[in-house]
Amino acid sequence: MEQTEMQALLQQVASGQVTPTAAGAQLSQSPIADIGYAQVDLGRQQRNGFPEVIYGAGKTAAQIIGIAQTLQQQNQPILITRLSVEKFNAVQAALPAATYYPEARCAVIGTALPASDSYIAVVTAGTSDIPVAEEAAVTAETYGNRVERIYDVGVAGIQRLFNRLDVIRGAKVVIVIAGMEGALASVVGGLIDKPLIAVPTSIGYGTNFQGLTALLTMLNSCASGITVVNVDNGFGAAYSASMINHL
Amino acid sequence: MEQTEMQALLQQVASGQVTPTAAGAQLSQSPIADIGYAQVDLGRQQRNGFPEVIYGAGKTAAQIIGIAQTLQQQNQPILITRLSVEKFNAVQAALPAATYYPEARCAVIGTALPASDSYIAVVTAGTSDIPVAEEAAVTAETYGNRVERIYDVGVAGIQRLFNRLDVIRGAKVVIVIAGMEGALASVVGGLIDKPLIAVPTSIGYGTNFQGLTALLTMLNSCASGITVVNVDNGFGAAYSASMINHL
Amino acid sequence: MEQTEMQALLQQVASGQVTPTAAGAQLSQSPIADIGYAQVDLGRQQRNGFPEVIYGAGKTAAQIIGIAQTLQQQNQPILITRLSVEKFNAVQAALPAATYYPEARCAVIGTALPASDSYIAVVTAGTSDIPVAEEAAVTAETYGNRVERIYDVGVAGIQRLFNRLDVIRGAKVVIVIAGMEGALASVVGGLIDKPLIAVPTSIGYGTNFQGLTALLTMLNSCASGITVVNVDNGFGAAYSASMINHL
Amino acid sequence: MEQTEMQALLQQVASGQVTPTAAGAQLSQSPIADIGYAQVDLGRQQRNGFPEVIYGAGKTAAQIIGIAQTLQQQNQPILITRLSVEKFNAVQAALPAATYYPEARCAVIGTALPASDSYIAVVTAGTSDIPVAEEAAVTAETYGNRVERIYDVGVAGIQRLFNRLDVIRGAKVVIVIAGMEGALASVVGGLIDKPLIAVPTSIGYGTNFQGLTALLTMLNSCASGITVVNVDNGFGAAYSASMINHL
Amino acid sequence: MEQTEMQALLQQVASGQVTPTAAGAQLSQSPIADIGYAQVDLGRQQRNGFPEVIYGAGKTAAQIIGIAQTLQQQNQPILITRLSVEKFNAVQAALPAATYYPEARCAVIGTALPASDSYIAVVTAGTSDIPVAEEAAVTAETYGNRVERIYDVGVAGIQRLFNRLDVIRGAKVVIVIAGMEGALASVVGGLIDKPLIAVPTSIGYGTNFQGLTALLTMLNSCASGITVVNVDNGFGAAYSASMINHL
Amino acid sequence: MEQTEMQALLQQVASGQVTPTAAGAQLSQSPIADIGYAQVDLGRQQRNGFPEVIYGAGKTAAQIIGIAQTLQQQNQPILITRLSVEKFNAVQAALPAATYYPEARCAVIGTALPASDSYIAVVTAGTSDIPVAEEAAVTAETYGNRVERIYDVGVAGIQRLFNRLDVIRGAKVVIVIAGMEGALASVVGGLIDKPLIAVPTSIGYGTNFQGLTALLTMLNSCASGITVVNVDNGFGAAYSASMINHL
Amino acid sequence: MEQTEMQALLQQVASGQVTPTAAGAQLSQSPIADIGYAQVDLGRQQRNGFPEVIYGAGKTAAQIIGIAQTLQQQNQPILITRLSVEKFNAVQAALPAATYYPEARCAVIGTALPASDSYIAVVTAGTSDIPVAEEAAVTAETYGNRVERIYDVGVAGIQRLFNRLDVIRGAKVVIVIAGMEGALASVVGGLIDKPLIAVPTSIGYGTNFQGLTALLTMLNSCASGITVVNVDNGFGAAYSASMINHL
Amino acid sequence: MEQTEMQALLQQVASGQVTPTAAGAQLSQSPIADIGYAQVDLGRQQRNGFPEVIYGAGKTAAQIIGIAQTLQQQNQPILITRLSVEKFNAVQAALPAATYYPEARCAVIGTALPASDSYIAVVTAGTSDIPVAEEAAVTAETYGNRVERIYDVGVAGIQRLFNRLDVIRGAKVVIVIAGMEGALASVVGGLIDKPLIAVPTSIGYGTNFQGLTALLTMLNSCASGITVVNVDNGFGAAYSASMINHL
Repeated sequence: MEQTEMQALLQQVASGQVTPTAAGAQLSQSPIADIGYAQVDLGRQQRNGFPEVIYGAGKTAAQIIGIAQTLQQQNQPILITRLSVEKFNAVQAALPAATYYPEARCAVIGTALPASDSYIAVVTAGTSDIPVAEEAAVTAETYGNRVERIYDVGVAGIQRLFNRLDVIRGAKVVIVIAGMEGALASVVGGLIDKPLIAVPTSIGYGTNFQGLTALLTMLNSCASGITVVNVDNGFGAAYSASMINHL
Repeated sequence: MEQTEMQALLQQVASGQVTPTAAGAQLSQSPIADIGYAQVDLGRQQRNGFPEVIYGAGKTAAQIIGIAQTLQQQNQPILITRLSVEKFNAVQAALPAATYYPEARCAVIGTALPASDSYIAVVTAGTSDIPVAEEAAVTAETYGNRVERIYDVGVAGIQRLFNRLDVIRGAKVVIVIAGMEGALASVVGGLIDKPLIAVPTSIGYGTNFQGLTALLTMLNSCASGITVVNVDNGFGAAYSASMINHL
Repeated sequence: MEQTEMQALLQQVASGQVTPTAAGAQLSQSPIADIGYAQVDLGRQQRNGFPEVIYGAGKTAAQIIGIAQTLQQQNQPILITRLSVEKFNAVQAALPAATYYPEARCAVIGTALPASDSYIAVVTAGTSDIPVAEEAAVTAETYGNRVERIYDVGVAGIQRLFNRLDVIRGAKVVIVIAGMEGALASVVGGLIDKPLIAVPTSIGYGTNFQGLTALLTMLNSCASGITVVNVDNGFGAAYSASMINHL
Repeated sequence: MEQTEMQALLQQVASGQVTPTAAGAQLSQSPIADIGYAQVDLGRQQRNGFPEVIYGAGKTAAQIIGIAQTLQQQNQPILITRLSVEKFNAVQAALPAATYYPEARCAVIGTALPASDSYIAVVTAGTSDIPVAEEAAVTAETYGNRVERIYDVGVAGIQRLFNRLDVIRGAKVVIVIAGMEGALASVVGGLIDKPLIAVPTSIGYGTNFQGLTALLTMLNSCASGITVVNVDNGFGAAYSASMINHL
Repeated sequence: MEQTEMQALLQQVASGQVTPTAAGAQLSQSPIADIGYAQVDLGRQQRNGFPEVIYGAGKTAAQIIGIAQTLQQQNQPILITRLSVEKFNAVQAALPAATYYPEARCAVIGTALPASDSYIAVVTAGTSDIPVAEEAAVTAETYGNRVERIYDVGVAGIQRLFNRLDVIRGAKVVIVIAGMEGALASVVGGLIDKPLIAVPTSIGYGTNFQGLTALLTMLNSCASGITVVNVDNGFGAAYSASMINHL
Repeated sequence: MEQTEMQALLQQVASGQVTPTAAGAQLSQSPIADIGYAQVDLGRQQRNGFPEVIYGAGKTAAQIIGIAQTLQQQNQPILITRLSVEKFNAVQAALPAATYYPEARCAVIGTALPASDSYIAVVTAGTSDIPVAEEAAVTAETYGNRVERIYDVGVAGIQRLFNRLDVIRGAKVVIVIAGMEGALASVVGGLIDKPLIAVPTSIGYGTNFQGLTALLTMLNSCASGITVVNVDNGFGAAYSASMINHL
Repeated sequence: MEQTEMQALLQQVASGQVTPTAAGAQLSQSPIADIGYAQVDLGRQQRNGFPEVIYGAGKTAAQIIGIAQTLQQQNQPILITRLSVEKFNAVQAALPAATYYPEARCAVIGTALPASDSYIAVVTAGTSDIPVAEEAAVTAETYGNRVERIYDVGVAGIQRLFNRLDVIRGAKVVIVIAGMEGALASVVGGLIDKPLIAVPTSIGYGTNFQGLTALLTMLNSCASGITVVNVDNGFGAAYSASMINHL
Repeated sequence: MEQTEMQALLQQVASGQVTPTAAGAQLSQSPIADIGYAQVDLGRQQRNGFPEVIYGAGKTAAQIIGIAQTLQQQNQPILITRLSVEKFNAVQAALPAATYYPEARCAVIGTALPASDSYIAVVTAGTSDIPVAEEAAVTAETYGNRVERIYDVGVAGIQRLFNRLDVIRGAKVVIVIAGMEGALASVVGGLIDKPLIAVPTSIGYGTNFQGLTALLTMLNSCASGITVVNVDNGFGAAYSASMINHL
């Protein structure tokens, strides 16, 4: 509760419009639904701009369903990430409105928010990075962003990037997704004047260390204007990009 | 050179307005000043929105001066980061317009761009994080951003953060700077609806590993909307924040 | 054998009450049952306050049964941790008194000790941390501690924590269990005046490194009064907490 | 502010005893002293049981003095850790009541709290671990704990430990401090029935990795009842031990 | 497009031989085939000397087939690496000209280029390194290199190496493939006067860390003239060796 | 070939007793059997004291059989380590004299050498370390060493160790095998006056890092006289111990 | 000694032209000069193509002088790398023919070999990488290679690279030197058809980890034809490049 | 106290020859001299074969002197390792019988034990490894071992090793000391039939990681019969080698 709201509430207590008990409840209350194994955060949209997202890995299908049903009262699209197709089938049985995006390994319950005019460019270095890119794209589209996909333009054939540079430069914010050595982020960062969010992927072998190399590359980029999220975190990149795109 | 510009130029070649040699020069040219030890990139402001920044570490004072003198023709503020006071003294002897910010270890040559209406909040967990915060603040101010400083509000005394939450929530973009375990980023991220750029600092000892712990904390945050830059990279965070703030 | 006991024994030797052979046996003896593949430590309860616990991973079902049967002579509850359901089934066939706690992946043979008045609070950041929390809770309850469970109050929705703060503050010792970036330990540590034992979990992906990130976060906490155990070591946290709770 | 206190306050607003403005201030207020570079947390003793401690590393002498002077209004002993003798000299010039403990590299302003009857045993493996042990001992003594020092009883000559086992077993909580391979924690842990807090030190070379090896040893101890703090964190171990000793 | 080609083209525009539109297309064009999930780089042979290679891991069989079909228009042998036998069967159904090399886990579509006179020596330390060696050998043979295989001559029985030294010394470039501690690279490097490319393999256990140890050994070799590729990267070593052999 | 043997041979050439061709063959020859995928080292027993050992992991059953058949001409026991039961079954079909030791995961073809009078003590910290201990014991017994097994005497119940100290002290060389934190090596090392070879095992979880923690503990032991082998390398420890025992 | 030489020598023994003693000496001899603290390898030029190089770090000036004086009998240029100016001054006092290259931190005694027609391109990403580049360039020039220096063409301003691409493409072998994220190697590798040797430098901060990030980037490059040397190893890259250039 | 000694003592108690008090003292006593900052272990020679060694790093000169003076009552040579020349000067002022070995950074008080007939070979790969080798050699000589030094025979010029192989093969135990990639241990291990103790040194740069690479190489050696000690631990290798040599 903001400082100013609190003053108003206390005025109402002083004037008798609100009882102390009701005011106390209001002051300490937070819109949390306690369902035992989860404290569902119903205040997140107001506080963070988007409703709570369900991270599917490490939760049972029953837990996912329970949380989703609790969130449904908010009339917002519900996003479930890192969801295997097996768990999705169980979820869909309980919540038939759920749609699955197999490449992205996400489900959405409800309708995506209307798309923005400005767009987010989702760029990948290789074909193998597409699943992470789709997690980003589905997240962004669910939260009301237009998305342009530019896939497989890594630096081994840099003219592929230059061919698509116009559409990248036209975006309000750019997400660059790359595994192996992750050099694409630096190259794109040197060519644009918009915020760039880099996503390392776990594509590679040997000293790639499941994406650590690409992460380090991106954190140490010689180009400015690049920020980074966790390995394979397409969702996180899109969430931040959506915040920026909606500014 | 954009596709459309190129067509126009070729029309001029076809019509004889431009000779093939001049057109060739124009097509391949890029605004680079070759000073031997450096290829000064004079096209960066047009391409990236801000002029080239001089990273002072690992360059001699003579090299810094040479690059700065080359950049001066652009009539833009020149930022030099990671600059020791000894090197600054040598720089100032050659470039008297240079101003030093000792806490930030930066110098600026020329006048900062006019400040924006919206502001960037620069938040630190502790007193020891202030040098990195000042690098961020000086960078942001140089590039025309209003900055609000909120220092020493780490989670060990979390009410310090709540006291200042209004000013943090009022920002267009928030930079959170923390060493040790870096938990402040997650807590702030859970309380705001604006993009948050997290900067780990090398403050700590033992298994802090010179900031690696705070970096990992920030990359793995359970709060959404957080992107991360390299350890102690106040400049990088401010550069991205400035891009966002100017959208 | 303590100094004073030894003096008494030697007096008996000197007075002829005890033969040198018997005294020698008593001096060198320790209550160990040698069953070939294990030296079962029957003196542990006297020495450490609790009987030996069987770490189920890396032992065959036959070995677990053999050790458990040897421990049974002590009339104390026997705890088996990290026990798969397959191994439990074999154990139960031989020891029908065994009870399995599937979420905790523990079995208990015998009756839990009577519960203390004071309680241990077991707090998790997320739903996915519950299995580790249950390992802690079952361990604590087996050894005679009242337990309060406070699950899914991570910092992404920090008001969830404040809602439950009273019950956390009422504990004699608090166990905080968190994966991902593990920031909950610092936040709770800053709000209580009781010992806090932090348990990192392996929940997360990418640079979480199977719980290493949460561990580092907890070791570097800016809040005081926090000690840490190994990743996913719910048992170890509860064992220490039980020692403290019984002081 | 606790739930019950808040209800009482609101009753006073309703009855007119307290104005809404005053109540609002009280509700949102927290005892923080803002001195620019620091938000001094004056509520820590009430919240955590001990006043705020000043971590000296990474702060200037002027900052330390400013924070200490702010804390002095609380009439509690002020502890400054990781304080070089140079900085201490500057601190003492401003705050003559400060006492320096050179081996511990700590200063205390004010009088230690009265010592408890029960004691904390501070045990080291080697002579080189004594500085960390003294940081722990001075911390514990400042916060009102009797301390027994048992130094240089590492496992290379294990009978040294058995010679002193009685005094270790008599403690209410035991701190074990060891560098190199840190095996002493496991051995002591197997011999006592009290909580043990292990402190790895950075004593060693090569693959000791500045204490990382001892830390890993302690986290993976085969003995139960051991919790761990950061490398060289004598203060943190003593702070937790003091909490336990005062239960 | 090279500087000189561009001048020639512009002369043609100026003289009317080429229209501006055609010239623009030619200037910006790059021989890329866009097939949605991939931007197939048809210019690679001209630019890099060899056609694009398909890295099979992380791509679906359908994607591999699509890319291979696009590359077939170039009339060059197509190499697919890291290809499981399951995926190969799908590929062969669509592209019957494909041949599988099971030990190398590669497929080749089309005929290998004619073999060079000079040869590449492919040397392994052990029998277990042969799969990586075969990936190297098949790659080299596909791109027109004669290959001599010298397998299982590791330093534990160093006379095995001396027995085969003549054939190693006769090569134009030598590839040394070793797991475990990887010492063979240093020993061979000290005995030859030709470039040596070292390939660490993931053969080993414990602190081998899946080939990291062999990689570090090779990077730190006391012998000169050794360069290194990623763990198990037989393809990459052969690609570079082929470039050298064809000089 | 030794210096003195070479002189004798050359004398024979000079006197015409040996032809230059025969002498050349003898000088360059080394007893290697080339079977394509392996250069079987038949000189190892003469050079190293024991015949070549077959490391089973990473070799096919056919390769193992081929190497074993080649080694059989030496009339020495052949040891195959890291051999799965599936591969053993294939090996035994071809070489019926092979015996399998399932706990050790080793096979031996032929009769063990006669046992020495002095013995090697093989000591484990826990029950889970027994497979590595058996690999060591079988290796030692195959190469003619008497072995005493002392299992499950880890430091959590240190009196278990003291009970068996006499037999440990009676050995000529001691192998200590421990997982988790590996502290047993230091404790034993402080109590004996014989060489101690420490073997870390991969038993543990979380920050055990598959045996790395125990390895680091052992390398940094505060006790002297300890040398270390790779994680789980029971074979290597026994091989060195056998060399020492046979001195 | 090669097989064929040995046969010839033995023929001479048989015919009495060479005594057995002389032949024995010749067979076992290797051109090593024993100077106590060093076994100077006088056969290296014949064996490896270049004389032994003196690695200056970790040797005293007296040791360097002694080794250099021994090597001088070979009438070849002597290269000393990693030589501080202080040690060089001592070396020059004893060996006045020595020349120092301060940026490269190398000294050369004697005259460089005549330069080749084909050249090695030495490319750096930044100004701060120049010292490593000069180590490479001085090494290459000493061993008879023409060198083209292309400095400060990193990917943050990628047109700087395109401006110099012609001279890079004209080289017989290319050395790419980069710190920070090291992306330049991938970009250059995608644009040329010659062998590329990548050198990571320790330029950077935070998660650069003293060049480890750039090393990993280069090892995982998505472009083919890249091999890598140790961090800051300009000498090693040039040594290999020289071997290739002289093929 | 051994089992048999205890029985004899108890017989004396029973027969009245020894009082219970005296027997109790004897049973619990261990020859420890408590000097406050150290528990000097006077029983180590009897228990471990050699007197306690003083590790000089991390101890003050006063502490070293105090411990040395306590040890002097044993009439055995006292070894102090890792001793700076500054501390040695202070030690020598108090203990004039001390001799300093500057290359080894060791001091010895008293006379070395008489040298054995059999010898320990101390082998180094390079000149820079000599300080570690001298620590090993001085340790071995102090404890009564003949030592043969074979320095600078690394694998880059492997014939240097073959030249000295006879003296290496003649040793009873071999210590191999190497930095950089540490390959020498594997090569020597493949050529001898005696125990080999490998010592990695911190000589190297970049990915050598202060000796970690050489350590990993040695732990993963493909040659058998190699055990390893900590980086730069010449003392530890010699201590174990001396135990073996005296068997």
